Amino acid sequence: MEFCQSVFLKMGCNEDDTRLASDVLTKSDLRGIDSHGVARLSGYTRLWKAGRINPTPNIKIVHETPSTATIDGDAGLGLVVTPFAMEIAMKKAETAGTGWVAIRNSNHFGIASYHTELALKRDMIGMSMTNASPLVAPTFSSERLLGTNPISVAIPSGSETPFIADFATTTAANGKLEILQRKGKKAPVGWIQDKEGNSSEDPHELKEGGALLPLGSDYEHGSHKGYCLGGIVDIFSAVLSGANYGPWAPPFVSFLPLSEDPVGEGLGHFVGALRVDAFRPSDDFKGHMDHWIRRFRDSIPAPGYEKVLIPGDPEREAEKDRMKNGIPVNDKVLNDLGDLAKELGIKPL
Amino acid sequence: MEFCQSVFLKMGCNEDDTRLASDVLTKSDLRGIDSHGVARLSGYTRLWKAGRINPTPNIKIVHETPSTATIDGDAGLGLVVTPFAMEIAMKKAETAGTGWVAIRNSNHFGIASYHTELALKRDMIGMSMTNASPLVAPTFSSERLLGTNPISVAIPSGSETPFIADFATTTAANGKLEILQRKGKKAPVGWIQDKEGNSSEDPHELKEGGALLPLGSDYEHGSHKGYCLGGIVDIFSAVLSGANYGPWAPPFVSFLPLSEDPVGEGLGHFVGALRVDAFRPSDDFKGHMDHWIRRFRDSIPAPGYEKVLIPGDPEREAEKDRMKNGIPVNDKVLNDLGDLAKELGIKPL
Repeated sequence: MEFCQSVFLKMGCNEDDTRLASDVLTKSDLRGIDSHGVARLSGYTRLWKAGRINPTPNIKIVHETPSTATIDGDAGLGLVVTPFAMEIAMKKAETAGTGWVAIRNSNHFGIASYHTELALKRDMIGMSMTNASPLVAPTFSSERLLGTNPISVAIPSGSETPFIADFATTTAANGKLEILQRKGKKAPVGWIQDKEGNSSEDPHELKEGGALLPLGSDYEHGSHKGYCLGGIVDIFSAVLSGANYGPWAPPFVSFLPLSEDPVGEGLGHFVGALRVDAFRPSDDFKGHMDHWIRRFRDSIPAPGYEKVLIPGDPEREAEKDRMKNGIPVNDKVLNDLGDLAKELGIKPL
Repeated sequence: MEFCQSVFLKMGCNEDDTRLASDVLTKSDLRGIDSHGVARLSGYTRLWKAGRINPTPNIKIVHETPSTATIDGDAGLGLVVTPFAMEIAMKKAETAGTGWVAIRNSNHFGIASYHTELALKRDMIGMSMTNASPLVAPTFSSERLLGTNPISVAIPSGSETPFIADFATTTAANGKLEILQRKGKKAPVGWIQDKEGNSSEDPHELKEGGALLPLGSDYEHGSHKGYCLGGIVDIFSAVLSGANYGPWAPPFVSFLPLSEDPVGEGLGHFVGALRVDAFRPSDDFKGHMDHWIRRFRDSIPAPGYEKVLIPGDPEREAEKDRMKNGIPVNDKVLNDLGDLAKELGIKPL
């Protein structure tokens, strides 16, 4: 947390933004989503050095109606722009029942569930999605036209832990491939294809121009549904907001150039908040959610499995463990952060 | 169309509702979604005879805010209740920017995309989803706790054909299994499991207590993401509206009894409408949608495939063909409809 803060302060972020951005990354590491925590710090720094991240953005509402707004993030950190947008969505939900905000000219927004959880304590359902660097091939295509385009939905409960879904619309996330690369293992069939569009089990394929596959893996197993989902996220995040969509989405890595013919501004996100009592009395809703959660959690497991999980359970278990035992950081990331500390002249992690 | 109308009139539906319900079924057959067209007529009739479908419902708004409403469908046909709800969502979107309607006490609503397409001509994005008879096992579970829970999103375009996604949140729909059963063929691995929760290739397994699998098939291929999606649809459709959720969802077939301890009223749906110009000028949005659609459709196909499709293309192609060559109806369905005509004393198809 402290190390994160030193980095964001060094970039020129103000204290509030620094605290917020560091909180997003720290929560990610705590919950076991290592790919979206401190491991991303040097990536953010390089984008800042390349002039693609503005540490002191003037975030503006460019259009609004009673239940909607469109926001220009002024090239700020998505980690800061998105909570700002979520606050507007929740304010609108207070008066209009729901609030929906499309965001353009932003950057990587961290874990999607950070933003949706903000809605829970106000008895609202939170939604968030973002487009991302093009690494995913639509069904039947050999080209990388979509990002891993995650969706999160957080739903309040009463006495049970809430339902918090947060998932990429691909079969496997990039982080899982990186683990296989490090271990020198093959990838399961259905995760990736090579640059010609043939099925592949080589986890290095992605660096050679290959692509991740939409959720479902192949047509026979419904990959056209994953492609639909990824497309919907891209359109809500980027076409509705006026950001760069599809293959024009700006890459997260600074060594890849931005498109020379951008179709919008920066990366796009879309967030929403629905006040539960805009539909039903909150207590009725939360009582039934508790019942739903208990019924699913108590379901009889299939052979070989211990228990049935509720969306959000794996992250809650990781958080419990890491609060007690600390967050393990792998050597490659530690070295990378050591170099970063030297480069920025700050105290190492 | 005429045959459909005779059936709904015989049930006691008024002329407007008859026309609407018949239109939903006919559009489904025209678009090649045979499982949701006239083939369902005898199912609807049996539910009506069992007193589970009310042909003359008094559909009521039970709660509302500027951008939301909750509707009691009074046990009416979902084919009629849902367009009513969609109309309210669109009216709310006109003034509030977006409109969202949760529906309880309804029945099977036909193809999800019928409802979302209603938004297109008003330059709105349409969304719809529904819960359904429990036939799907969550990841790691041996029990059937969710329906195939489809989602549709229709997005307007300018000169290009619109983006119309409509898909079950399972790997394969029930209709596809029925085709394999008729042909005596095996099902691909990843579509179903047996009643103990073991992977199976026998398409008859579903009748023996087995289950369909969430989109993704197994954990390694992301079935927990399909489970999240199915859960979100169930909660939005049924917990938010006050309908029967999860395993309590009323079965479509009249020979299966209703739950003795219902947790809500009837089946649930959720629909939404987002006015495009509540975010950006419509022409800007539609211009970029046209560009998006062209870029994806012109993408280089993977080996063995002819072209890359846009969501809605397969249904558009079927419609073109069937407008010209007519709608083929298989013998089993024809016999079934012949029996139905005799039973109701109406002119056969």
